[in-house]
Amino acid sequence: MIKALLSLLLVLVAVSTSLAKQEKIVPTPAVKQEKLLPKWGKRIPQTLSRGWGDQLIWAQTYEEALYWSRSRNKPLLVIFHLEDCPHSLLLKKAFADDMDVQKALDKDFIVLNLMYETTDKHLSPDGQYVPRMVFVDPSMTVRADIVGRYTNRMYAYEPYDLELLLENMQMAKKLLKTEL
Amino acid sequence: MIKALLSLLLVLVAVSTSLAKQEKIVPTPAVKQEKLLPKWGKRIPQTLSRGWGDQLIWAQTYEEALYWSRSRNKPLLVIFHLEDCPHSLLLKKAFADDMDVQKALDKDFIVLNLMYETTDKHLSPDGQYVPRMVFVDPSMTVRADIVGRYTNRMYAYEPYDLELLLENMQMAKKLLKTEL
Repeated sequence: MIKALLSLLLVLVAVSTSLAKQEKIVPTPAVKQEKLLPKWGKRIPQTLSRGWGDQLIWAQTYEEALYWSRSRNKPLLVIFHLEDCPHSLLLKKAFADDMDVQKALDKDFIVLNLMYETTDKHLSPDGQYVPRMVFVDPSMTVRADIVGRYTNRMYAYEPYDLELLLENMQMAKKLLKTEL
Repeated sequence: MIKALLSLLLVLVAVSTSLAKQEKIVPTPAVKQEKLLPKWGKRIPQTLSRGWGDQLIWAQTYEEALYWSRSRNKPLLVIFHLEDCPHSLLLKKAFADDMDVQKALDKDFIVLNLMYETTDKHLSPDGQYVPRMVFVDPSMTVRADIVGRYTNRMYAYEPYDLELLLENMQMAKKLLKTEL
């Protein structure tokens, strides 16, 4: 009797395993996102910061960011990233945790983080990759001269490059044109 | 003695009132926003919904919204609004509270709310005003034919126009092109 039960159990385990295998569909990114969505009424509202610093005031779009940059005479930092890119995620964590970077941005910069490219080709001087950080002057000129340490991806930063980022922020504060 | 105290009190009240008057500065909108910002560490992260429906999945930018619309074959609703516009605020409240609108949008639409105009002139067929709601087909064609009830501002809606908006959403779901 115990043997019969054990056999039945084994069969059941085998069946459920094979069922589980059949159900395991490799999703495309879009499907994956839809599946991961919690049900109506249980979703946490999306933030504009997307984890890059909840205490910063983020512009929503490039147009908005340019307007703020011009009207407040502050340089703009545009961050391109993706939520499923490990390099972006590591940089984001270091960036959000670095109080020197965060406070300096809050005081003297307009900030914008984007997961989709804009139509402005000037924002991708050496290609569209992530993570990528580009400074824009209040005179609406992309500061292609302010680069990271990688010659093949000049606007990429790694988590341990935040000191260089702070130096670059200092450089960006020296405005190209003092009168607009 | 009591008279003297009362006089002193009156003088103090007068002085404090005049001081209060001196401190009352009428701020320009930009200054007002900066002044209203809570201190570092006390700010609530901004949401992408901006009050138009916390349970909806909002696109951040027009580029992102177009990509989602194309790839998921769902029409896009773009809402232009301003946070200091009373018409926008009343429409927003009615819109966010209307579960028929919200659930239909969640099921069949891509949604984007913007406070700054994009560079695409097609999104302002009869001018740049708020509140304004424009549908875009997954084939990336602005549905200028889907209008509200006002001939002078064809894409404006009032809070009591949500029935018409629902009808217009039905119209938008009849895609212009079934194959992309």
